[in-house]
Amino acid sequence: MILEIAQIDVKPGTETEFEAGVQKAVPLFKRQKGCKSLALQRSIEKPSRFRLFIHWDTVENHTVDFRGSADFQEWRKLVGHFFATPPEVEHVREVAKGF
Amino acid sequence: MILEIAQIDVKPGTETEFEAGVQKAVPLFKRQKGCKSLALQRSIEKPSRFRLFIHWDTVENHTVDFRGSADFQEWRKLVGHFFATPPEVEHVREVAKGF
Repeated sequence: MILEIAQIDVKPGTETEFEAGVQKAVPLFKRQKGCKSLALQRSIEKPSRFRLFIHWDTVENHTVDFRGSADFQEWRKLVGHFFATPPEVEHVREVAKGF
Repeated sequence: MILEIAQIDVKPGTETEFEAGVQKAVPLFKRQKGCKSLALQRSIEKPSRFRLFIHWDTVENHTVDFRGSADFQEWRKLVGHFFATPPEVEHVREVAKGF
């Protein structure tokens, strides 16, 4: 399992609407192949910055299956207009769980 | 509860030693006031990039209590020499848990 971290800066003033858009999109992620969890994190230092944490079975479940789906278009329709800049996306793997 | 995300780029070739250094530091974090969990994530796209995910009760448990402690010096002694650049640290709060 891997974790997608999508750093999303939204246009100042649209934070609440963006959060609502993500909530609306939850069922859409829930039905994706290999999608295991979704959580939205909001930066304390920069309140217009969010990080979407999404667990997938594989990187390709995100980059190929999801991005190639009609649901991806739907996702962007729900939240894309709030983006101040293109999201910065990276995938990570847990290499140590301390406690 | 908040999550500290510390993005750490290490000098290429020191990844394994850095991971071992983090493992050695686990007991040190475990005894910090308000420190609830620690996990180390490694980037798939940039293998010399790590993200330390640390849950704290409050931001100040990290920025004041921990950074002001002798254990912080110890932590830096264990891993600081592997850093390629100063870590980028941000704190986030979960605002939505989709599933």
